[in-house]
Amino acid sequence: MDFMKALRAAWRERNSLLCVGLDPDPARLPSSLAGKPRAVFEFCREIVDATADLVCAFKPQIAYFAACRAEDQLEALIEYIHIQHSGTPVILDAKRGDIGSTASRYAEEAFARYRADAITVNPYMGWDSVEPYLMWEGRGVILLCRTSNPGGGDFQNLDLGNGEKLYERVARLASGSWNATGNCALVVGATFPDELARVRALVGDMPLLVPGIGAQGGDIAATVSAGQTSDGLGLMINSSRAILYAGEGNGGNFADAARRAALDTRAAINTCRGASVSPLFRG
Amino acid sequence: MDFMKALRAAWRERNSLLCVGLDPDPARLPSSLAGKPRAVFEFCREIVDATADLVCAFKPQIAYFAACRAEDQLEALIEYIHIQHSGTPVILDAKRGDIGSTASRYAEEAFARYRADAITVNPYMGWDSVEPYLMWEGRGVILLCRTSNPGGGDFQNLDLGNGEKLYERVARLASGSWNATGNCALVVGATFPDELARVRALVGDMPLLVPGIGAQGGDIAATVSAGQTSDGLGLMINSSRAILYAGEGNGGNFADAARRAALDTRAAINTCRGASVSPLFRG
Repeated sequence: MDFMKALRAAWRERNSLLCVGLDPDPARLPSSLAGKPRAVFEFCREIVDATADLVCAFKPQIAYFAACRAEDQLEALIEYIHIQHSGTPVILDAKRGDIGSTASRYAEEAFARYRADAITVNPYMGWDSVEPYLMWEGRGVILLCRTSNPGGGDFQNLDLGNGEKLYERVARLASGSWNATGNCALVVGATFPDELARVRALVGDMPLLVPGIGAQGGDIAATVSAGQTSDGLGLMINSSRAILYAGEGNGGNFADAARRAALDTRAAINTCRGASVSPLFRG
Repeated sequence: MDFMKALRAAWRERNSLLCVGLDPDPARLPSSLAGKPRAVFEFCREIVDATADLVCAFKPQIAYFAACRAEDQLEALIEYIHIQHSGTPVILDAKRGDIGSTASRYAEEAFARYRADAITVNPYMGWDSVEPYLMWEGRGVILLCRTSNPGGGDFQNLDLGNGEKLYERVARLASGSWNATGNCALVVGATFPDELARVRALVGDMPLLVPGIGAQGGDIAATVSAGQTSDGLGLMINSSRAILYAGEGNGGNFADAARRAALDTRAAINTCRGASVSPLFRG
């Protein structure tokens, strides 16, 4: 699979900019799975089956698997997605960043071991810490630019003296000299729509992974308006907790609740998409 | 174990500022271990036994274990160090960085699962991405400041308009408002001694983890001169490949070769340490 081609196909075929984040918190798994040896995999598998036709990508967050020694379940989950929902890109959210020789090992982990189609990468260590991922043909490399968390601005928003912010410098490099292969993308949080618009203005139609709607409070209308490309695409709008745990506390089937939440979120996103999108494709 | 106390004790008792990095590259393991199911653990265990009395810390790099599905061997290695070489601090080199809820899972991975005494963390996402690690009492949190790789300056050396560089801002925060617990430390590469001196001037006697001697070309004398505190301490000078693979190609015992390389490196470091260190403790 070529990540960028698969993403563009999924945007159109599934009429969706929604990315579902797979962050299986052991403390929040449904009671029906309690005590099962592969509860993390089973939970994610049911979420995936319930939402795959509604998403442009899945994004497993590796920390949730690593903290509970469930690397084997993460491997099984990504393999399951590739087999059962072929064509759905999988982004490994790992935010790796290290010197070249070590980055090569992390790339091996993400692309050979887990068979992810894309990985998130932290750019703080510069070009030679990013290049090893880009040497994997057809894999996406999604660099942190302006993150959605409260402290995201501590460094990312610092002014470089010429009016340019640090996150803008990241965006400029990632869409310029670093992007010879065309496989770069960026992470820009939904919680800062002005900065999302600024990044969109800098990077052309580069795909943006946008966390921060749902539990983190980002506004869907502002996000779509600020981040979409002229053809109403360009975004992977991530929701994790608001979909995974939509059924929490109501006693119903968690996968059904997740599907309803994904349908609602996709519809809310599509309602806001540009006029260039056919009305037939909305909702 | 309290990381900072254990580090200070190891500096004095072992008369060493040397940190040995455990980066087991499968392609470079000795032929005597080829094909063994726990070759990565066995290799590191022999290196650890051969050098533990010469180091102030060990630093396993998690990518080398994760790329070859050897998380269980990393767990076993750290447990082995704690039991057989008790009092030797273990730094998990993971360079994690994520929003607070995810950072909590990474802290769980490092401190509960692997029982590391300290972890390296990437500061790009700001304060709330760092805080969850600091909530683990007595564990060290070693923030990337000025890294040793060629691209380290792409962002870290950017001028913030007032003459301050980005890495200096990181150093100022890590030694100021972020360091209420006293458990912060910084990564500063040996390949840039002027910037190492600048960080030392900013952070008082905060411990600095200094990669970049050996394979990366950093100069020991310049590193010690620029980075030591007034009492000739303050540094964890890391060497990985130059020690692990010292015996490569010469047919001898790799652990013996590693010990000789560690002895030589410790001696080279101690020869350069400040006059306030008793001559009895050198070499």
